[in-house]
Amino acid sequence: MPPASAISAAAAARSLRLASRLTPKSAPLPRGFELAAVSTGVKKSAALDLALIHSTAPCTAAASFTQNLFQAAPVRVSRAVLDATQGTGIRTVAVNSGCANACTGVEGDKDAQKMVDLACEAVGAPKGAGLVLSTGVIGQRLQMEKIKAGLIKAGKGLGNGEESALKSAATAIMTTDTFPKYLSRALTLPESGVGFTLAGMCKGAGMIHPNMKVHDPTTATRPLHATMLGVLMTDAPLAAPSATSALAHALGDSFNCISVDGDTSTNDTIVLLANGLAAPNTAMSATDTVAFATHLRTFARDLAAMIVWDGEGATKFVSVRVTAPTEPAARAIASSIATSPLVKTALYGQDANWGRILCAVGYASVPDGAKLDAGAVSLTVRSNGGELKLVENGQPKYPIDETVASKILAEEEIEIVVDMGLGSKAQANYYTCDFSDEYVHINADYRS
Amino acid sequence: MPPASAISAAAAARSLRLASRLTPKSAPLPRGFELAAVSTGVKKSAALDLALIHSTAPCTAAASFTQNLFQAAPVRVSRAVLDATQGTGIRTVAVNSGCANACTGVEGDKDAQKMVDLACEAVGAPKGAGLVLSTGVIGQRLQMEKIKAGLIKAGKGLGNGEESALKSAATAIMTTDTFPKYLSRALTLPESGVGFTLAGMCKGAGMIHPNMKVHDPTTATRPLHATMLGVLMTDAPLAAPSATSALAHALGDSFNCISVDGDTSTNDTIVLLANGLAAPNTAMSATDTVAFATHLRTFARDLAAMIVWDGEGATKFVSVRVTAPTEPAARAIASSIATSPLVKTALYGQDANWGRILCAVGYASVPDGAKLDAGAVSLTVRSNGGELKLVENGQPKYPIDETVASKILAEEEIEIVVDMGLGSKAQANYYTCDFSDEYVHINADYRS
Repeated sequence: MPPASAISAAAAARSLRLASRLTPKSAPLPRGFELAAVSTGVKKSAALDLALIHSTAPCTAAASFTQNLFQAAPVRVSRAVLDATQGTGIRTVAVNSGCANACTGVEGDKDAQKMVDLACEAVGAPKGAGLVLSTGVIGQRLQMEKIKAGLIKAGKGLGNGEESALKSAATAIMTTDTFPKYLSRALTLPESGVGFTLAGMCKGAGMIHPNMKVHDPTTATRPLHATMLGVLMTDAPLAAPSATSALAHALGDSFNCISVDGDTSTNDTIVLLANGLAAPNTAMSATDTVAFATHLRTFARDLAAMIVWDGEGATKFVSVRVTAPTEPAARAIASSIATSPLVKTALYGQDANWGRILCAVGYASVPDGAKLDAGAVSLTVRSNGGELKLVENGQPKYPIDETVASKILAEEEIEIVVDMGLGSKAQANYYTCDFSDEYVHINADYRS
Repeated sequence: MPPASAISAAAAARSLRLASRLTPKSAPLPRGFELAAVSTGVKKSAALDLALIHSTAPCTAAASFTQNLFQAAPVRVSRAVLDATQGTGIRTVAVNSGCANACTGVEGDKDAQKMVDLACEAVGAPKGAGLVLSTGVIGQRLQMEKIKAGLIKAGKGLGNGEESALKSAATAIMTTDTFPKYLSRALTLPESGVGFTLAGMCKGAGMIHPNMKVHDPTTATRPLHATMLGVLMTDAPLAAPSATSALAHALGDSFNCISVDGDTSTNDTIVLLANGLAAPNTAMSATDTVAFATHLRTFARDLAAMIVWDGEGATKFVSVRVTAPTEPAARAIASSIATSPLVKTALYGQDANWGRILCAVGYASVPDGAKLDAGAVSLTVRSNGGELKLVENGQPKYPIDETVASKILAEEEIEIVVDMGLGSKAQANYYTCDFSDEYVHINADYRS
């Protein structure tokens, strides 16, 4: 049996520092969005565990869901809502923590559907105009009486645009997160000059290796699954198909390329809501739609990075940048490095054991067709502490300057750069953290 | 920085108990095999770090090598030897620990070749009749002066059939292993009635997720890579093609289905040597060849299991048994469960968090073509402490009896059984261990 779990003093101090650096003091909501956060008692502590989001105007909505075979009940139900509404007319999103309502069978599906109905009732929205997200322990049933009472309470407590509302909601969806993750930005559409707000929150610290597919309500593809949750809100006048494509564009360098432990959850969901109140009855031009998608991508990446910073037991933030002959190859190699326990423990130990990085490059499951050559690979590691080219065209650059290596690895933020050579142009990034004994402690007794 | 590495008292006691249970007191060698183990000083301690194997009669040889893109120099050199000799006439194998001679560029290749030449010289074998295996830190050059002196010393100290020689050799190839891994069995070929001995050793505790391909010297396939080493020796009169097919048969339920951390090394190698001295100038019948292959498979599985028992920081031995529509699907699902940090930390914490197992089933990279249905999956966990059917046809079996669950998980040896349903018949096993804070400690400062 492992020692009892408790966040260390060092980890607590780091969490405070990160929260202050990464999240804003004030987080204005887009026009028309109201949020509430309550404690239902589903979490054993009296902590906030239910967030309710309401838009006074109907929203276009897009969402991406985990591709896990065991899609959780809230994922299945939310997909059905998007299919039925074609991503229009959405008014509310309910998010609970403490119970994932995953692997709960047919009764779990009924619970998730009931949660949607109760959320719509609580905000006075038409039936079927709501989405539901859950996170927490897999395999346990939702305590519906507690959820019901919580939704009613939340519906009465919706705060209209309070600058602390987003922070409270982000707090309510936390599980092993040590700080709430949220952002708000005031932006402008370049062509129309319309000012709009983009605000959002996400959660996640473990079971993080999202591999989501944007759900397209116009086709019948089966989406995949993971547990990280996020809700992105804007008052920009985004049409439903544009919301879907903007979200797909954003995922590629954000929520779909982060890893804490390589475990892809049953519940991963990102929802994008746009109510258009920044410019009612306006259609966005093509230029503005592209500009919005670019803003959303940066915004999503900054939110997703918070999850890695707050990865369970993490002490390092590591960017893995790979150039390879094809994008799938680059992504497979970056993912392999980002999930290798040996690379991650070496980073924790600040040990310049760079052979482990090459080893992880070498066993990546690279999709067929990408020809690789060990003799063409270059590897560089850098941080604010310096830069070391460790391997060039497959040849190690002896001797390794261990003093510089130590300085590089002592930094909290580290970059691993791999170039597979052979004229490679395709790139992929992965954001990951190190692997510490605290990760083990957190997860050896998560349920207790 | 993590705390300093040191094996805990509990781990040390467990290691002693396992060594006494799993390895024999006396380990006779097959006729004609002589072994030596010496300390060269490549390891910083004065520990044994070089094993030399010699057969007085030429051997047929087969080998499997890692499929890592960065095949270590000893892998490349040994492959070339097998190609040149077509797996015949092999007389010696040199194995060093402390330095993997991997990712060492063209100079590393020369070092490995030199090591073969020196080994042949040391035992008085013709040039090119030797194989070389290395394990240890990646990216460091072999200290050839020390290796040379060690090989000369070992050549003079070859012990002919001493029952402790195998244990000493197995000790010399250890890295983070806590006990030497070796076996010896006296067996009989059923048709000819010839008695023969099968003896072998292996090493490995971390960077263990072998994915080897048996090298076929008659074709020009590129083998794959991992760091686990093993040498299997017999005096049975095995022809070279039979050695290759017997090894391939053995790997499927042994060295190729174990995992400690999911990291597939640059150096994984298993060598099978057969000198025929049990029945000189005899050809094995088809029946006896099949019988040998069956014995080899059991022998290899028992050796491979020792690696999992001794996995870095391990406190549990876990068998994952999956039945699925296809064998590749079963293997992918078993591998996914066996490498999930969340499953492995829950096992360490003796926490019946079975949802994590289903989650890992659900995100397995199942090869195209295998149709799966979450609603058809069944999950059982059992040990000497009892048995619990947790999920049947996709529906959780509520309520989970937590008392029984605790008894099951308190055992040291645990079995996870997954049936994907849909009339599945194909099976795959994976053997894995749990994931403890000790794993992190061992690997955060491995080089120091």
